[in-house]
Amino acid sequence: MQEPLVPGEFDLIDLYFRRRSARGDVILGIGDDAAVLTVPAARQLAVTVDTLVAGVHFPAATDPAAIGHKALAVNLSDLAAMGAEPAWVALSLTLPQPEPRWLEAFAEGFFALAEQYGVSLVGGDTTRGPLSITVQASGFVPPGMDVRRSGAHVGDAIYVTGTLGDAGLGLAWQQGRRTLEASDGAAMRARLDCPTPRVEAGLVLRGRASAAIDVSDGLAGDLRHVLRASGVGAVLDVDALPVSAVVAGQADARELALSAGDDYELLFTVAPDRAGAILAGMDELALRCTCIGRIVSEPGLQLTDAAGQPFVTPVTAGYDHFREND
Amino acid sequence: MQEPLVPGEFDLIDLYFRRRSARGDVILGIGDDAAVLTVPAARQLAVTVDTLVAGVHFPAATDPAAIGHKALAVNLSDLAAMGAEPAWVALSLTLPQPEPRWLEAFAEGFFALAEQYGVSLVGGDTTRGPLSITVQASGFVPPGMDVRRSGAHVGDAIYVTGTLGDAGLGLAWQQGRRTLEASDGAAMRARLDCPTPRVEAGLVLRGRASAAIDVSDGLAGDLRHVLRASGVGAVLDVDALPVSAVVAGQADARELALSAGDDYELLFTVAPDRAGAILAGMDELALRCTCIGRIVSEPGLQLTDAAGQPFVTPVTAGYDHFREND
Repeated sequence: MQEPLVPGEFDLIDLYFRRRSARGDVILGIGDDAAVLTVPAARQLAVTVDTLVAGVHFPAATDPAAIGHKALAVNLSDLAAMGAEPAWVALSLTLPQPEPRWLEAFAEGFFALAEQYGVSLVGGDTTRGPLSITVQASGFVPPGMDVRRSGAHVGDAIYVTGTLGDAGLGLAWQQGRRTLEASDGAAMRARLDCPTPRVEAGLVLRGRASAAIDVSDGLAGDLRHVLRASGVGAVLDVDALPVSAVVAGQADARELALSAGDDYELLFTVAPDRAGAILAGMDELALRCTCIGRIVSEPGLQLTDAAGQPFVTPVTAGYDHFREND
Repeated sequence: MQEPLVPGEFDLIDLYFRRRSARGDVILGIGDDAAVLTVPAARQLAVTVDTLVAGVHFPAATDPAAIGHKALAVNLSDLAAMGAEPAWVALSLTLPQPEPRWLEAFAEGFFALAEQYGVSLVGGDTTRGPLSITVQASGFVPPGMDVRRSGAHVGDAIYVTGTLGDAGLGLAWQQGRRTLEASDGAAMRARLDCPTPRVEAGLVLRGRASAAIDVSDGLAGDLRHVLRASGVGAVLDVDALPVSAVVAGQADARELALSAGDDYELLFTVAPDRAGAILAGMDELALRCTCIGRIVSEPGLQLTDAAGQPFVTPVTAGYDHFREND
């Protein structure tokens, strides 16, 4: 073994990731064997973990600020889908070697989003290896108010926030599989690289939506998770799927909206008499929110078009990292 | 995109990692966007995260049961070093492809240790990529009772549990850098591959030790973290360092004990009048616990031998994944 050089593992954490927390519930932050935290009274903890791997979830050459943003965003999106208010995150960063410029940009993207939601980084680990980022996020939810995948009931309406297919189109453009105007391509890429976690929308769903999930694998695949967990089926109107003007300009706009992943919108179900309160809340957030179908008793996912005719497409499987590298 | 094959990402979690939790504080376990958990009244949360990367922290061909054990053990060790009682873990597993036999063995090693400490797996993510494992562990500690690195005081005695250098010797043997009797080598390898997190010992330290850390990087390096955090120095008696008979048989036994990592023993400091209670507790656990030095005001780490003469060695730097791949 040798005497330490600078910067080493500990210095990396110190240099780029140790920031004084503004949260009163962080008793002890980064720098010890563990962080010490206080959960507020009358709150349960919602906990999620997600890993992004270079070459699988993003090209290794992606702007490190975007990687920092996205690694946090996908976890905040999971908390949003539970109706939880984000509080703390732990970051495990594996990288081939410590590059100050890369780390600085990564930290910038990460903390910009963290600060936007008042989230504190409370744990960190840096190791040498192929580039990958694991973020574990914790949030609060009042007991009984969490929104699960398993609560959809027959007769519930199915809604989705924002627009679908943008990130998938951005990826196809980036990979040279689609031709777009440069400005359109860049807009789609921004949706892919810097998704907006629907944190405030998740709080609107709390105690109101019957079920929710975030759209990470693709609308059809993620809806199937809800249907399976709830023991119900759904009829989806593919012509109602909300798409941006750029996606609408594609011949396969409906397929993109159905199956492209990485949009991180919220997909939720709600009893008809509770939809009004949610729509009012989304209106206040100026967030588009579209009814795209309804829950039925017959298992499975039926796709129809605006005329009520069956819509047949082969592209409704969810994204799976073990099956394809799209 | 294609229709799903089996097993896919979700099936992996279901098949190998979703087990009903025996803990009443797990309101909702694996299978939704986030787990929902209840922290007991009058307890704070201790949270830690650690990543193990194939080729860096273990050879890729290591027995997967040992990898599962170790990935959890190193995190439980961090909680032990805070005096926290382990409760929940989240697992993020990145692997090149889903191999049922590998996953089965990994899960076996992981859950055997988890069950031993009544720990529940509450979150999981599997992704495709170079083999690496991130575990985030949470535990409970009464307010004000956590044991930090920063609490060492001048006059405190320095103790360490168990024996030092075994794991490092096991690694050297495995890599063909040392010759050992096969049974000795295997015993050292077991210390490397299947470390015992000192969970019960950590509870003995709670409210009694002034500072603690687990020995992951090497005794000298980890002690330096305590000294730096506490603003003190230490005098260490290298002849007092506890070693196994196998390590004692090596010409550089003291260097191994000082600088080899991965032993996951607890290093702690304690005021002289509180040492008795801790030693009694360790006795009850039948865990060796050795006084190896004392905290002094002069900064830095002074090494002496049993005769009080300075001990000079170049091998006192802590392990750092960005500096060497030992």
